[in-house]
This record gives sequence, structure tokens and C-alpha cells, in this order.
Amino acid sequence: MTAPEASHNMRIDTDRLVRRLTELGAVGGLQGGGVCRLALTEADKAGRDTVNGWMRGLGMSLTIDAIGNMIATFPGTEDIAPVMMGSHIDTVATGGLYDGNLGVLAGLEIVETLKESGITTRRPIVVAAFTNEEGARFPPDMMGSAVDRGSLPLEDALAATDAEGNDVATELARIGYAGAAAPGSVTPHCFLELHVEQGPVLERENITIGAVTGVQGISWKEYEFAGVSNHAGTTPMALRHDAGFVAASISVAARRIATEMRGDQVATVGVMELDPGLVNVIARKARVTVDLRNTDDSLLKAAEARMAAEIKALAEKEGVGISERVLARFAPVTFDPGMVDRVEASARHLGHSVKRLPSGAGHDAQMFAPDCPTAMIFVPSVGGISHNIKEFTEPDHIAAGANVLLRTVLALANQEDA
Amino acid sequence: MTAPEASHNMRIDTDRLVRRLTELGAVGGLQGGGVCRLALTEADKAGRDTVNGWMRGLGMSLTIDAIGNMIATFPGTEDIAPVMMGSHIDTVATGGLYDGNLGVLAGLEIVETLKESGITTRRPIVVAAFTNEEGARFPPDMMGSAVDRGSLPLEDALAATDAEGNDVATELARIGYAGAAAPGSVTPHCFLELHVEQGPVLERENITIGAVTGVQGISWKEYEFAGVSNHAGTTPMALRHDAGFVAASISVAARRIATEMRGDQVATVGVMELDPGLVNVIARKARVTVDLRNTDDSLLKAAEARMAAEIKALAEKEGVGISERVLARFAPVTFDPGMVDRVEASARHLGHSVKRLPSGAGHDAQMFAPDCPTAMIFVPSVGGISHNIKEFTEPDHIAAGANVLLRTVLALANQEDA
Repeated sequence: MTAPEASHNMRIDTDRLVRRLTELGAVGGLQGGGVCRLALTEADKAGRDTVNGWMRGLGMSLTIDAIGNMIATFPGTEDIAPVMMGSHIDTVATGGLYDGNLGVLAGLEIVETLKESGITTRRPIVVAAFTNEEGARFPPDMMGSAVDRGSLPLEDALAATDAEGNDVATELARIGYAGAAAPGSVTPHCFLELHVEQGPVLERENITIGAVTGVQGISWKEYEFAGVSNHAGTTPMALRHDAGFVAASISVAARRIATEMRGDQVATVGVMELDPGLVNVIARKARVTVDLRNTDDSLLKAAEARMAAEIKALAEKEGVGISERVLARFAPVTFDPGMVDRVEASARHLGHSVKRLPSGAGHDAQMFAPDCPTAMIFVPSVGGISHNIKEFTEPDHIAAGANVLLRTVLALANQEDA
Repeated sequence: MTAPEASHNMRIDTDRLVRRLTELGAVGGLQGGGVCRLALTEADKAGRDTVNGWMRGLGMSLTIDAIGNMIATFPGTEDIAPVMMGSHIDTVATGGLYDGNLGVLAGLEIVETLKESGITTRRPIVVAAFTNEEGARFPPDMMGSAVDRGSLPLEDALAATDAEGNDVATELARIGYAGAAAPGSVTPHCFLELHVEQGPVLERENITIGAVTGVQGISWKEYEFAGVSNHAGTTPMALRHDAGFVAASISVAARRIATEMRGDQVATVGVMELDPGLVNVIARKARVTVDLRNTDDSLLKAAEARMAAEIKALAEKEGVGISERVLARFAPVTFDPGMVDRVEASARHLGHSVKRLPSGAGHDAQMFAPDCPTAMIFVPSVGGISHNIKEFTEPDHIAAGANVLLRTVLALANQEDA
């Protein structure tokens, strides 16, 4: 254990971290930039092998559990609950180099920085790469961390299938990452995840560090409307049962409700499909999805109730039938205020501008929030762009985020039990 | 030439007409009902052969012109400008037995009724079956009548191709209906077309005969909106450039504008396509079509101007780019008021309820309106349904329409030149 003053001036090696991000980004790299490492593909295996090599190269002990989570431990001076960092290395089909990868590789960079400085913390430090956070190939998302925390049964996760009918169990075994260890073997003292914001807020406000206060609750619903197909020229307006008009009205209502509710409330209609979808035919059917998010579950429920009432009224007025289906419903997650304070204090100490903000996207960290003090650190995404080959975060921001993570981890890893 | 009093009590043979509609409907008939006789297919050839046989069986002289129009003439006592009736026998891919076919077969039924009664009118009577009215396989619609009237050059029509790249000239020759005659050889005294309404107005108002006052003008525009794709959870409402929201707003605006303008104005958004079309992604692109129709061209232009202004304002407010394309623009057609009066008077004389109304759909008759006195007779469509295998018109209404046509034709065919 090293005196605090020595570690205060320690910094991660930005070039090394950026080089590793670039090197891992080349595994499954796409022409024109970006990367495709969908979970449990050959590219994912190759990415895992690369990270696996780095973990072992740092002298970390690596556990692969039954859902394929890679959990690497760097020992502390005491064999007690570790400080855990983690994220994921799987990507969407046209993803970037930062989403997920930054959290894993910054964790390894911190271990390497400590090692080079000859520092051993009191608590062990664990860096995890969780399986299939994106859910882009196999539902649900955050699969590995959910299984680790017991909120998703292992057998359900192993039985999940992709669009071609391949299941997780078979694909995990095929790529050699069906481990023997039971998930959830580590009981962390606390959990931290560094991630790119994937939104425009930090960049627009010219802020370097986001101290993430929690994760928005998510409500996804799908609606199908059954109207009457008819001739666009011969059917008077008053006699129409236009499923497309109802679909469009819902998109407009979603915008109005979110705008009126203000605060964190967002609402998105990303799917509008009309049948038959012809210029001169009133739509017989329409499929629409509504994505509502709020950090406050009572407000999210209020938004759901307002949307449901509007949709019912719109469909009834038009004489159009409704069928609906819940696609997803996650309650909001609130991160530990003390942990958020620590992130904010670390950022300020290092001279960075900082803003407390919620995460609009789901992350592995939220699975840990019920079990241990948890927080996240965001760094700006250029243009707010993510899940896109154009995803980019400036090296200065990567360095800032990793140094805030380092400082926060160091304090926590030397912390006494409460 | 027969005395008017004899012909006043003459009626068509409803059973024979319905039998012929059924017989023709079986050519290219679909399992479960309906018919598929897309223009210039084998089924169209078979349908043409059937009608051709009936025309010749009535002793009519048949001309096939270079666009494949079948023009059958029954001589009058004088070799002067004929009374012309016509429609089409091609159908959409899942069409009914009445759209188009009724106009052709009712024309033949009238000739047969006159013939059986030993009546020869002063003017010849011409019954035409025009090529490719539907435009379902080859654009544009109303092809044969447009070529006949010179509003579409023959060479353009012959060069039109279907989705597989087959052209009209080749397909016409293949089915043996590329005739030698120049189109437009008949200069009619007047033109009449009996057709099913294809809309719900007559049925809802319990009216038997529609005296069609004209054809609505049609304005079709396609818009593509270029927004910014982004994460539905992490992008605050105020920072969005949501192409899907603009698309939806246009559908809602179209409904509002048509409703406010009242009268004949109709507006339909039948196409709304979002890219990428995912539940949690703000749409990067949206494609929308706007179908506007009005019988009054100045009102149609006003509707176009209001839509254009709203679309511009909506896209600007959202920060979304617009590109637009005119898909179709036809000015409204007004039928000859004297002809419409004659149709109405014939209907009333025969004891039928009658309503003057515009046609929301395009018809072959509109091509003749600039050249000679033209009118149309509508009979009710059950449920207002057309372009659908469920298309149906009651035999009583078929009889009523054909008898109104007979009475009107008879008066016109015995009319002196003005």
C-alpha cells in the first residue's frame, strides 16, 4: 500500500489506451471504419482472445463463467471484496470502437498504471468484460451482467436464440468461451463503469466528465392498428378508418407529451410501417413502436398512462382497432449518491468540468446497482453519435475519463470497510 | 330507325349481363374470388379473346389499333359520328369482376338489346375496350384511351416497361393484340362510360345512380426528409432532428387541411417509411407520399400550397432537410353539363334515385372529355370496396346502370347534329 500523496499524481498512459482501443477496434473492423463484433461470433471470439491476452499479460487471474463473462482479478494486499470495473466488448453490427470497449480497456489500463507505479491497493481490483451487452444478436441486452447478478436465470440466457435459430449455449461452446465457473462468484465492494455518453449533452455544454446519477427507466410498446384499406380518391375524409393516420398521430402525440412533461422525459416513435404502403391507398394496417424513458418511475408511469389514453382516444375516433404488446419495461436505476459524489470530486480535483446527468441508455453497471455502491463516468461522444461507425471520442476525453476512473478506484480500493 | 315510344320500354337482359360478367371474371379468376388480368398477360389475352368473340358474335366490326385498343362498331342508319361507350377489361393483381368490365360488357349488352329489338339507331354505336387502364403493370394508367386521344404519344406507351423490364410493344405482339390501325380513328359524337363507384357514397346515401360531374384533379408528391439518426434514450427532445416525426406531422397536417377545406378535398398519406426503423433509434430518413384530390383546380392548388408551406415549416423547425418529387399531377376534368343532365334525366325517368357526384378515381372517359360531350354513370359498390377481390355490385344496380346507359345512348344515337 502506497501513501496517498504518491498516487495523487499518477496518470494513465493515454497513448497506450488509445492504441489498445484501436487494436481491438481492428478485430472485426469494417471497411470505412467502425467494427462488427456481434456477440459470440468469430469476431467476438477474436476480440475476446485479444483482451484475454492483455489480462493475462498483466498477471491477472482470469475466470470465464458459464455465460462467458471474462472476469480478471488483480490482487490487493488483502483478500477482501474487490473494487470491480467492467463493461463489454461486443458491438452492434455497425458499431464504433468506444462503446463498451473503453470501459474494459480503461480498467486494464488502470491495473497496468498501478503495476508500473509499483502500487498495490488494499482491495483486489477486478476488470470484467460481460457477454452480450448489446443484445444485437441475442435478446436480451445486458445478458452477461444480468446473469452475473442473478436477475436473468443462466438457463434462460443459454437458451436465447438469434435470428437464424442458433442458441447462446451452442455459440458460447463453439467459440470456446463456455466457462466452468458459476456466474456471480465475485461479490464486489463497489462497481464502476467508464463509458462514452452516446448522447450530445456533454459536448454541447462543453463539459468533459459526466457523473452519471442513474439509468433512465425504459418503456417499449408496440401497437398494431387495424383500419380499412380504401381508395384515396373515392373515400371522403369523414368515412375513413385510416390506420396510417392513427400511427402518425401517435408520433405527434409522443413528441407533445414528452415536451410538455419536460425534465428527463423522452419519447420516440422509431417504427412506423403502413400496409399496403401505397400512395393512393388508405392504410389497412399500421405498426408503431413507442419508446418512453424517464429517470423517475412515477413520471415514466404517468407518460405511459398519457400515451395509452391518447392512443385509445385516437383509435376510437378513427374507428380503428388496436392490439398492443410490451416489448420491454425496465424501472429506472439510481446510482449510489456517495459514489456519484466521489466521481464528481475526482473530476473536479483533476481540473475537469463535470455535470451530473442520467444515462439514457442501459449499461452493465445498472445490474450491480441493487447489490453494491455503483456509479458510472461518461466522456463526450463527438456529435452525440453512437451505435454508428462514426462513433468517436477525443483522446483528451478518453484520458480525462480514465484518470477520473483511476483516482476514484484508487480511493475506493484503499477504503476501509464501513 | 324506330319510333321513340317503342324504345322507351326496352330493357337490357340483366341475367345475360351478369352471366357475362361472371364468365369474363373466371378468366384469370383467383382462388377465393376476384380476378388477376394484369394488362398484356396471358390472362388479359384470354379475356380479350372472350370479349372479341362476343363483339364479333354481335356482328360488330372490330378494329384493333396499335396500342391494342379493341374498338367494335355496330352500324347506324347513317355513316356519321358514332355514340361511343368504353372502359377496360384489364384488372389490378387482386381485382374484382366489375371495375372496367361492367362498362365494356354493358356496352355490348346494349347493342344486343337493340339488335334483339330490331332497332337500328341513326348513329353507329361503338364499344371500346381500352388497353391498360389500371396501369398496375405498365405506367401510366389510362394508357389506351390516352393514346387514342393523342394525349400520350404511341411510341412512349409502347416503350413503357413493367417491373421485369418487359415493354408494352413486345408484350402486345406476344399476345397477338398489336393491331395495324392507327389509334384515334373514331371521332365520336359523344362518349359514355358506366362504372362501379369504387367508393362508399352511393351505398351510404342509398342512391342507385351516380351522375358523374367530372373527375377529381390529382396531385401526388413524394418527400424525403433527412434528419439525424440518434439514440432514443440519450438525445434530449430539444436536440432532435427526427425525420420520422416530420413524416408523421405531415400525415396529421394533411388530414387537418383536407378537413378544414371541406367540399371534395381529400388528402392521403399512404406511404411512411422510416430509416433505420428501429424502436430505439431516432429516424435518420423518412419517405412520405401526399395524395391530394379536388374537383376544382384552384382549390387543389390551394391545398398543394398549404401542404407545401406546412411541410417547409415543419422541416425547418425540426432541422431536417427536404427533397421532393412530383409523382403525378392531373388537372380536374369537368364532364359536359348537358350530358350529365341527360344521365340524371334518364335515371329519374326509370324511377331511380340519382346523385350528381365527382369521380375520385381516374377513368378512360376523362380522356374523351376535351374532345366530345362526355359523361359517366356510377352504380354503388358494396362497402365502397374496389381494387379488391371483395369488389361487388348488386345485380339490381347493374341492371339499373345498364338501363340508364341504354336510355341515354338511345337518345344520343338518334340525336340530330347540333
